[in-house]
Amino acid sequence: MSPWTSAVGAPQLARLLQSQHTREATALSGGRRLPAYRALADGVRLLVLEGRVPVAARLPAERELAAALKVSRTTVATAYEALRGEGFLESRRGAGSWTAVPAGRPLPGRGLDPLPPEATGSVIDLGCAALPAPEPWLTRAVSGALEELPPYAHTHGDYPAGLPALRQAIADRYTARGVPTMPEQIMVTTGGMGAVAATCRLFVRPGERVAVESPSYANVLQLMREAGVRLVPVAMADRLAGWDLPAWRQTLRDAAPRMAYVIADFHNPTGALADDEQRRELVDAARSAGTVLIADETMSELRLDGTGDDAAPRPVSAFDPSGSTVVTVGSASKSFWAGLRIGWVRAAPDVVRSLVAARAYVDLGTPVLEQLAVTWLLNTGGWDEAVTLRRGQARENRDAVVAAVRRHLPDWEFTVPRGGLTLWTRTGGLSGSRIAEAGERLGVRVPSGPRFGVDGAFEGFVRLPFTVSGAVAEQAATRLAAAARLVATGAAAEADLPRTYVA
Amino acid sequence: MSPWTSAVGAPQLARLLQSQHTREATALSGGRRLPAYRALADGVRLLVLEGRVPVAARLPAERELAAALKVSRTTVATAYEALRGEGFLESRRGAGSWTAVPAGRPLPGRGLDPLPPEATGSVIDLGCAALPAPEPWLTRAVSGALEELPPYAHTHGDYPAGLPALRQAIADRYTARGVPTMPEQIMVTTGGMGAVAATCRLFVRPGERVAVESPSYANVLQLMREAGVRLVPVAMADRLAGWDLPAWRQTLRDAAPRMAYVIADFHNPTGALADDEQRRELVDAARSAGTVLIADETMSELRLDGTGDDAAPRPVSAFDPSGSTVVTVGSASKSFWAGLRIGWVRAAPDVVRSLVAARAYVDLGTPVLEQLAVTWLLNTGGWDEAVTLRRGQARENRDAVVAAVRRHLPDWEFTVPRGGLTLWTRTGGLSGSRIAEAGERLGVRVPSGPRFGVDGAFEGFVRLPFTVSGAVAEQAATRLAAAARLVATGAAAEADLPRTYVA
Repeated sequence: MSPWTSAVGAPQLARLLQSQHTREATALSGGRRLPAYRALADGVRLLVLEGRVPVAARLPAERELAAALKVSRTTVATAYEALRGEGFLESRRGAGSWTAVPAGRPLPGRGLDPLPPEATGSVIDLGCAALPAPEPWLTRAVSGALEELPPYAHTHGDYPAGLPALRQAIADRYTARGVPTMPEQIMVTTGGMGAVAATCRLFVRPGERVAVESPSYANVLQLMREAGVRLVPVAMADRLAGWDLPAWRQTLRDAAPRMAYVIADFHNPTGALADDEQRRELVDAARSAGTVLIADETMSELRLDGTGDDAAPRPVSAFDPSGSTVVTVGSASKSFWAGLRIGWVRAAPDVVRSLVAARAYVDLGTPVLEQLAVTWLLNTGGWDEAVTLRRGQARENRDAVVAAVRRHLPDWEFTVPRGGLTLWTRTGGLSGSRIAEAGERLGVRVPSGPRFGVDGAFEGFVRLPFTVSGAVAEQAATRLAAAARLVATGAAAEADLPRTYVA
Repeated sequence: MSPWTSAVGAPQLARLLQSQHTREATALSGGRRLPAYRALADGVRLLVLEGRVPVAARLPAERELAAALKVSRTTVATAYEALRGEGFLESRRGAGSWTAVPAGRPLPGRGLDPLPPEATGSVIDLGCAALPAPEPWLTRAVSGALEELPPYAHTHGDYPAGLPALRQAIADRYTARGVPTMPEQIMVTTGGMGAVAATCRLFVRPGERVAVESPSYANVLQLMREAGVRLVPVAMADRLAGWDLPAWRQTLRDAAPRMAYVIADFHNPTGALADDEQRRELVDAARSAGTVLIADETMSELRLDGTGDDAAPRPVSAFDPSGSTVVTVGSASKSFWAGLRIGWVRAAPDVVRSLVAARAYVDLGTPVLEQLAVTWLLNTGGWDEAVTLRRGQARENRDAVVAAVRRHLPDWEFTVPRGGLTLWTRTGGLSGSRIAEAGERLGVRVPSGPRFGVDGAFEGFVRLPFTVSGAVAEQAATRLAAAARLVATGAAAEADLPRTYVA
């Protein structure tokens, strides 16, 4: 069985390979040169491990790739042979070659992937920007849900729009934040990704354009790529100034994208926060262009500095009172716990009805018990107490990560964000992808910049999440510094450093 | 905002409209004729209410539809105007017309949709073939899960392949059924639909062919339509003989579909059960054709007659020891409770790895708590006790439904299935769609045959689930008989019968 699901053309693969090498990285490689086939094989392996080329994707024929890269066909053939030997490529006569991952190797393609449980002792996993549950609130919420369960147990348990009680509680919360909302405007989804996926399916067809911040949330970019949409990146301004409104206005006007996806609240990965004026202008520009503006509020409660809520900007939807332009996506994953898989959409009632109607063919609905747990949290005030705990935890982690990176990687540049869960840092002119690969071998897992970019941008960045503190943050920075040294001296490309775990 | 997501061409709409009128139904309409525009408007409304034309789908221009139907443009214009007045159509100059549902109207497009809670007293909902939870096992399982939760609460909660303990428990169950299985062969999904959706995404690209039983499970057919695949129907043989192997062999050989989707265990909707020989031949034919065979085992534990397990055929995957052809889909929704939203895939390890890698861009993972609940059930034996309860419940319901239909609708023809949750019945020559619409007004909700067919087949059928018994089954059959009388006399097409509830 060769279940290849997509194909990577020769020009596309060549572009991806070339994006891995920043000029600085080449300069810093200390003059050591790998054989051309080895450099090519390493590059492909890295693209697969990073999820930038999917597993089971058909690779171009040797002849085509050789032409696109301007190397000999022998080089490509030898590289493919090496990749086959390492388990990263499978081939069959007549069917071509497709990417693979060797047995026992952690899977690529995610936030990153969670490590296998037996590895968590030895590897510091900075792949996922999500925190443990804010106990005792998870246990309390589930106990509360258990008490509410009996009447639901008597039903068939299938609620495609979400439990009425949860839709009401989420609507009330928007109303309290100054955006009057009816339960008919809420659909509960399986996580925030479920909300984004449903919205994409409703509004965008393959080949249509979607404007995104550049950088943006890696999983959403990949979701859109897989849906066949054309991503139109709009660069974020430097130093957390965030949204470059003239650029946004021009892109929306000129490209007239069907949809735009923005994270105005503690943007992932940069941590930037849009102010009221930026929000108003984004909504106005989207409305003028006839673009649906998806506002992802997943991080909105994770303000880490400044206690007064007077400082908080208004929700993006507050600037769209008619409800014709903005669709809001929310989630319990960052405010509370990702293990609940509860997200939601807030939109005009007719949009919610269409989203619900289309849902039967995806996941039918979100589990009842989790919905009851979140309802319990929202209705008892437990949610707010849990968020307060969570903010404290994230703040402590942020400060530890920032201090450790400053200590061990003094040439890495970043601006400390005032909220969210991520630090977006330049990697001192080195390739973020190479640092990520070297880190993987040295016991620290980080996602590199290109995951958050369109077409290989941000090779000189990595994202660090606010999920560790104390000695672990220190150890993570130490390992990253070691990885950076390996990359700088060119040693990282030589295979077979000791692996710290086997999945 | 006019979020139309799909378009229905004039020839397609004409075909769908024509499929609504079985010859018998026309003959039985008592010679009463509606105005042409009214018949057209009713037809479109019915298609929308049944979900056979999606909400927010663009309809053809009046001129095109008039040509396709060979009626005057005035007829189409008047019908569209009527639909607009009733809230089933919205139009905007320059943007065309698209389908809608009026505010307060239950949404179409699902299994059917669950009724709003306030309506459940008055309407008998036979839309969904799912039973209430088999208490006390749900409560016990959730309590058990709560005790196991603390170590997971310390993690970020994101398990794209499923919790290791649950993958192990599901694998052990297959092994015990005679199909040796490793945990690496299992991916936990959000319901069985999540499993089918993931499998489709991996194996089939738009425009490729998928062979399906005809009839088959409505939501899966719709999922595949939305994925842009070409459905190749293979007719089920009559009287629960089920799989017409010569037809399957020929279809697989001639059409060489990328994938085939079969429900060999108490097929939905017919209730047929494939025997060992049919299973072996299906697998062999798929292997020869290079077709991936998806075996949906959602109903497999719902044997209602015959206690000896010697009577049970072997799992479809038992006939594919190399694991190269069969992908199995399972679910807790029918055996236990749909409100858990737990499903799974069993496949070769490399297929599971590819499925997991692609998952980040859909729903990231399945909630932890539900997974712990199912793990608890499987590991304590609670699962088997719950299934025994559930079988008793389903058997009682089946016998009640069969008896009530025989009493009140003596000309409806069916074969009583020996398992599963559905009765597939001919409707005495009347249109199943019209009966469904009349039933909706008379307080009984049933899905009509065409939901389970490709291209409007099975207009002369409805599906009745084994979800009611006693007086409720009796009342349901009484209302269905009344609906059938309305359709037979032609009165059902006249609008504005009293509605029994308002959503």
